[in-house]
Amino acid sequence: MSDTGFEAALEAARAGLAEGGIPIGAALVRAGEVVAVGHNERVQQGDPIAHGEMSALRAAGRQRTYRDTVLYTTLAPCAMCAGTIIQFKIPRVVVGESRTFPGELELLRSRGVQVEVLDDARCVELMEQFQREYPILWAEDIAE
Amino acid sequence: MSDTGFEAALEAARAGLAEGGIPIGAALVRAGEVVAVGHNERVQQGDPIAHGEMSALRAAGRQRTYRDTVLYTTLAPCAMCAGTIIQFKIPRVVVGESRTFPGELELLRSRGVQVEVLDDARCVELMEQFQREYPILWAEDIAE
Repeated sequence: MSDTGFEAALEAARAGLAEGGIPIGAALVRAGEVVAVGHNERVQQGDPIAHGEMSALRAAGRQRTYRDTVLYTTLAPCAMCAGTIIQFKIPRVVVGESRTFPGELELLRSRGVQVEVLDDARCVELMEQFQREYPILWAEDIAE
Repeated sequence: MSDTGFEAALEAARAGLAEGGIPIGAALVRAGEVVAVGHNERVQQGDPIAHGEMSALRAAGRQRTYRDTVLYTTLAPCAMCAGTIIQFKIPRVVVGESRTFPGELELLRSRGVQVEVLDDARCVELMEQFQREYPILWAEDIAE
């Protein structure tokens, strides 16, 4: 699956970087169609809950169900985003990479979420460069 | 502890109900002072991630740390809000009630969060009445 959803998430991450933000993006997909995309907007909106996944879910608005959706994200979901995936009963998450941040993949799996990690080199490079250039902002985003 | 934070959360929940929304409120407190309040805004903003706790954290904006804060909420936090509390490293949560929704109190405790449940009759009554009058909206909010 060369993936429209994954490419949309990566494009959103890059758009976030171009805005001066944290380069993490996500896309919510249903039946192969992108329902909504989002990227981290901590910097742009001063909003600490606006991680990429959260922004995509906010952009999607109220949904009758998420059981028929897949969430794509460039980086392993943190506890906030993992908890949201569990709460919304999103059955499947495709993760760009988990090298630069391990996230809560085991929590997701323990709650029955199917997790696929692509280990995509473009995502790794994007985050490695960001973490190197903006270590304080990155630490803030993961509350370290 | 007759609690400014808890009363602020309850007031926010009631304000949400008066707006036609889901009556769940929260307040972030530091050193006895309310930093920010919020209430569920699924209906008002069409925003599925705007649970009471999330709205309070968004309203608080970017914070250097949450390790010196307490989060008050009228209802037991769902997986999204529990994950956020864990991610943000909020050490203590005071919950109005967990009778009408069990939430993820064990997940919080398993990650070292101190959880106190007040079992407040006003919170129980507010949610019982809401759940009785708006069962479909309530089901949507907890993705059932």
